[in-house]
Amino acid sequence: MTEKTTELDAAAIETLKSVTTATLTTILLKKGLRNVWIRGANPIHDKQERVVGPAFTFRFVPAREDLATPASWGSPISTRAAIESMPEGAFAVIDSMGVADAGVFGDILCARMMKRKAAGLVTDGVVRDLMGVLGTDLPVWCRGAAAPPSVAGLTFVGWDETIGCGGVCVIPGDTIVADLDGAVVIPAAFLGEVLEEAVEQERMEGWIVSEVERGEKLPGLYPMNAETKARYEAWKKENS
Amino acid sequence: MTEKTTELDAAAIETLKSVTTATLTTILLKKGLRNVWIRGANPIHDKQERVVGPAFTFRFVPAREDLATPASWGSPISTRAAIESMPEGAFAVIDSMGVADAGVFGDILCARMMKRKAAGLVTDGVVRDLMGVLGTDLPVWCRGAAAPPSVAGLTFVGWDETIGCGGVCVIPGDTIVADLDGAVVIPAAFLGEVLEEAVEQERMEGWIVSEVERGEKLPGLYPMNAETKARYEAWKKENS
Amino acid sequence: MTEKTTELDAAAIETLKSVTTATLTTILLKKGLRNVWIRGANPIHDKQERVVGPAFTFRFVPAREDLATPASWGSPISTRAAIESMPEGAFAVIDSMGVADAGVFGDILCARMMKRKAAGLVTDGVVRDLMGVLGTDLPVWCRGAAAPPSVAGLTFVGWDETIGCGGVCVIPGDTIVADLDGAVVIPAAFLGEVLEEAVEQERMEGWIVSEVERGEKLPGLYPMNAETKARYEAWKKENS
Amino acid sequence: MTEKTTELDAAAIETLKSVTTATLTTILLKKGLRNVWIRGANPIHDKQERVVGPAFTFRFVPAREDLATPASWGSPISTRAAIESMPEGAFAVIDSMGVADAGVFGDILCARMMKRKAAGLVTDGVVRDLMGVLGTDLPVWCRGAAAPPSVAGLTFVGWDETIGCGGVCVIPGDTIVADLDGAVVIPAAFLGEVLEEAVEQERMEGWIVSEVERGEKLPGLYPMNAETKARYEAWKKENS
Amino acid sequence: MTEKTTELDAAAIETLKSVTTATLTTILLKKGLRNVWIRGANPIHDKQERVVGPAFTFRFVPAREDLATPASWGSPISTRAAIESMPEGAFAVIDSMGVADAGVFGDILCARMMKRKAAGLVTDGVVRDLMGVLGTDLPVWCRGAAAPPSVAGLTFVGWDETIGCGGVCVIPGDTIVADLDGAVVIPAAFLGEVLEEAVEQERMEGWIVSEVERGEKLPGLYPMNAETKARYEAWKKENS
Amino acid sequence: MTEKTTELDAAAIETLKSVTTATLTTILLKKGLRNVWIRGANPIHDKQERVVGPAFTFRFVPAREDLATPASWGSPISTRAAIESMPEGAFAVIDSMGVADAGVFGDILCARMMKRKAAGLVTDGVVRDLMGVLGTDLPVWCRGAAAPPSVAGLTFVGWDETIGCGGVCVIPGDTIVADLDGAVVIPAAFLGEVLEEAVEQERMEGWIVSEVERGEKLPGLYPMNAETKARYEAWKKENS
Repeated sequence: MTEKTTELDAAAIETLKSVTTATLTTILLKKGLRNVWIRGANPIHDKQERVVGPAFTFRFVPAREDLATPASWGSPISTRAAIESMPEGAFAVIDSMGVADAGVFGDILCARMMKRKAAGLVTDGVVRDLMGVLGTDLPVWCRGAAAPPSVAGLTFVGWDETIGCGGVCVIPGDTIVADLDGAVVIPAAFLGEVLEEAVEQERMEGWIVSEVERGEKLPGLYPMNAETKARYEAWKKENS
Repeated sequence: MTEKTTELDAAAIETLKSVTTATLTTILLKKGLRNVWIRGANPIHDKQERVVGPAFTFRFVPAREDLATPASWGSPISTRAAIESMPEGAFAVIDSMGVADAGVFGDILCARMMKRKAAGLVTDGVVRDLMGVLGTDLPVWCRGAAAPPSVAGLTFVGWDETIGCGGVCVIPGDTIVADLDGAVVIPAAFLGEVLEEAVEQERMEGWIVSEVERGEKLPGLYPMNAETKARYEAWKKENS
Repeated sequence: MTEKTTELDAAAIETLKSVTTATLTTILLKKGLRNVWIRGANPIHDKQERVVGPAFTFRFVPAREDLATPASWGSPISTRAAIESMPEGAFAVIDSMGVADAGVFGDILCARMMKRKAAGLVTDGVVRDLMGVLGTDLPVWCRGAAAPPSVAGLTFVGWDETIGCGGVCVIPGDTIVADLDGAVVIPAAFLGEVLEEAVEQERMEGWIVSEVERGEKLPGLYPMNAETKARYEAWKKENS
Repeated sequence: MTEKTTELDAAAIETLKSVTTATLTTILLKKGLRNVWIRGANPIHDKQERVVGPAFTFRFVPAREDLATPASWGSPISTRAAIESMPEGAFAVIDSMGVADAGVFGDILCARMMKRKAAGLVTDGVVRDLMGVLGTDLPVWCRGAAAPPSVAGLTFVGWDETIGCGGVCVIPGDTIVADLDGAVVIPAAFLGEVLEEAVEQERMEGWIVSEVERGEKLPGLYPMNAETKARYEAWKKENS
Repeated sequence: MTEKTTELDAAAIETLKSVTTATLTTILLKKGLRNVWIRGANPIHDKQERVVGPAFTFRFVPAREDLATPASWGSPISTRAAIESMPEGAFAVIDSMGVADAGVFGDILCARMMKRKAAGLVTDGVVRDLMGVLGTDLPVWCRGAAAPPSVAGLTFVGWDETIGCGGVCVIPGDTIVADLDGAVVIPAAFLGEVLEEAVEQERMEGWIVSEVERGEKLPGLYPMNAETKARYEAWKKENS
Repeated sequence: MTEKTTELDAAAIETLKSVTTATLTTILLKKGLRNVWIRGANPIHDKQERVVGPAFTFRFVPAREDLATPASWGSPISTRAAIESMPEGAFAVIDSMGVADAGVFGDILCARMMKRKAAGLVTDGVVRDLMGVLGTDLPVWCRGAAAPPSVAGLTFVGWDETIGCGGVCVIPGDTIVADLDGAVVIPAAFLGEVLEEAVEQERMEGWIVSEVERGEKLPGLYPMNAETKARYEAWKKENS
């Protein structure tokens, strides 16, 4: 673990946009982190491009009929107030405890997040008014859609806390990267190392794919034996 | 609960076609009904438009090898006989107990339902011969597709009974409304009130979205405070 | 059960390509086999055509941190070695024990399978680098996609063994047929009989659909009573 | 399947009280019935003796807040009315759809069933007021206990219908046998054959256990080869 | 909802010790609260008496390998520090997100809670070192036992917060009552009303049981019709 | 990982009999192994003492009606043959894929295992004829009991292979330790280290419990700070 935390600045975001979540999980696993992929969060359409941003968390608990009411939407501790607190570029991460029959956000809240330039939204629950949400163009990863409002199953309790989402621990400020394979958490303390290794890992895997396309067999190629490594290093020298 | 039951006539169907299931669940929740959305029932293609109709129910129980046979399809108590009993415009609601490895209906039965002008079909189970079912153009909401016939896991026992479907109670004659967010049950006794409030709720939410697009913040807007309400009422007066 | 095993030759493959998995499960159920459909395996895109091939099995067990490491990918007992052992036209069937948070194969391994002319791949688990896998054009049936590598949750232990996949027993050399309704196993000893009956069943169901389109009612038509059978036989005579 | 249905008279009940549910499922499986054991129904204490009786069914659907109220307990279609309709010796089988957070019956209803000489109660759901239920001495098989009343999750809709319970089809008048291994359904049409074979099967398994205790190896003993069969037949002759 | 919150003083605790959780859920349901019973929390032995206390909450999120380590047990934000903050008589309520393969507390922590005079412990997860925990005599409700330490699956994040436990919202200071039917949450604002009604409800149900034992039929008795009510009122007058 | 494998001899078994599975999982976690506890395997009675033995594995796959028949019990590849191959003292570990509605073993097979001096049996599935199994005194850890025979849901395929059981990888010869907290796998390569550390860990935890009983606070005690460590070391010196 690096002592000094690397910042997720514009350059880091640009780098991570070119790295698959598959590569990121491989790198983190080599560092001992096997549990960084948010279960149950798929993109809501299949053209979704990769999105990167710092985590901004929302926490829900189960509904209690006296607390989870449409009236509660006007309370100072509401999803509305939380959205107004999101910094530009933040990635909303919502702990819905996997609840699939109450939609955490619909078109109005997603439209407002777009206005506030949120990077995207990921939840282990579902959204509602899917057609409206698709219309806002907010990048969303979730378990699907359900018509009922959040208060049918959930009570909102706060934001900017450490949460669980899809079986993963998410701390405000961790980096979220999401693509067609779902959403991955890069803990803040690991960002520097991951950035260093990610680009090289992507280049190497790209070269291996091209070797497979040329007809190379897998053993010795992936993972690379000494001979293949030498060939790859030679190719890198030529192409850099 | 209204004393007199409102009928689901052509005008009511037309009205409900313009109301999202998200709005309907919000209205019903305000009346104390939190459990009206059928779990596990998604449209089989993503261009599916909203469909409305009175519930016509089918009930299955688990398969027993001596009862659940292809021969049973010819019995007087069969899905075939049930389909022939459906009135025009009815919405088939099928209690499959969430079974996901035996398809309740395939292309032949769906084609016949289209011929009989069924509004649509919703089940907490799956269909089979998905390509054929898509070809019939019957609007279908379900948990997915599976190749095995219903008798691989289910025995049909009757129609036009009160059933459970996706964790919701469905009584013949309740109104079913289904769109991209899934299928919602409007109990017969609530139809009148829902019709009264639904159109206004949709108009209000549409106005709020337009306010968000203009850059308004959420607190005070959604839900509306007194000032916003006044602005909205003024807008309504101007635009009616 | 036939004594002599029928071979899955080119003609048999051609025949099965015209038979839906829905029809195959009906035929096998009539022979007493109710459990031949692999649960949780959907095609990764909705244009996927039907694919047929003999099963070539892969077996995983849960991950143990000392065994399931990126280094293990270079071991003689690895998914890489297994892929190099696949005969042309084989259908990879992968027992992932339903694990949905570790992708068994990604773009590199799928690209190599295409090079080796695999018929397709079916698993009760997930793939990773979905965009890359789609790019290889390998026909794939699975539970979805996840970013983490197989070693995050799985240890590979061997190939060409009897396995379970999606709640179904798969023996190397059984025939796999997969389409939009998922993947079905035809046990080797049943292939001959299935081939004999499948084409007639498809023709019959096609005729029934056309009758439904003409406006015929279901009772007496599907299943056919004596009169309908006579009409169908007459039609067959005319059209053969 | 026998043509003539055998009655579950006092003698048949006496016979079945000496046959384990394990033996019954083996006999039924040999006749092609693999799905006769009610999932999720355990005895509520570990001293429970075997109980036998004809099935008397109760059917619940999910709760809807306007229907599932304490007031509904007084309606003519209520669990109370159903209990008063149970004949002496009947075995209550309750379709709770596996709901584990609303207890179908508590001490009052169980006490009344005891008064009416019910044989027992089996459900795929739970009971409530477990201490009170234990106090009534009614033999109960269920998934456990939960404090909330049935109306918290369930609506009662009728009795004496074909139902599903724990993934099994139960028809009024089928025979229920329940012991420490749970509850098994003997379809009415199979009762005669089962009675004929059950006693012999129990005797045979008892003899095999005694052989194992004498030190015999399993192969050839269980299942028996020709030589073992001869030995067993000789023993039977001696001991009859 | 009462304006003024009733305190859970010694008298209130004494009263609630004589009220079953079954009765409490019925009373709360009549007030519109259907979701107050903690799912998956059973007593660890079947002689456990009823326990009452104010909720003191613990919150876990999923484990991340760099955070969830035995070393973390020494951090200022640890379960140890939380236990030392518990007031006498508090009921520990632990949000384990239903995780069943990592034990939140073992014998050492339970022994310390006993020393600090905790009323009991309830979690939707599991404990570890069950034999040791039983030895401490701390009343515990949980999903069972598992050997692995909490850090195998969980990271502790804080105490005295609003949490979800077993699908129920728990706010510090709510009252917890637990018996053989599990654990129920009485929201602070409802305590006064519940206390008023609970004793009468228990008395009434006790009288009904005695009537059933005398041979009375259920309809008219439970729920009571006018005539039964009159009889009951007369009995109350005589016995008060 | 130690190079040289330590043998599970009589002394090692004696040592492990005094170590809780809770302690073993803590030790293995410190070595990087978080996934060594078999999910879903509880002792069948609550007086079960700790049992230790080398793993002897059984592998099942799902049932196919033509393979999974009572006749198959006589085949050379059968559970019977596997049991006759078990060395004295072996711990049977059975991969039932978590199937809970078909009992892998009943009284006859368990009685034979006792005769052959098996240490115990653990499965992620269930047993059948629970009363008979209890009568054999074989120590058994499982998910419960079910009446149906294994062939109702499972096909046996082999023994002495690497398997998955309850989400854990088990290799023949790994050590199994099971007590009231369930069953833990000690991989062969880790046995030496575990033996070295286990006894000291137990002694230390015992001392901590006694300190708690004396009234010590948790912070600084568990885990121990420097001062506590010194006190503990002094106590050890005195008491050794």
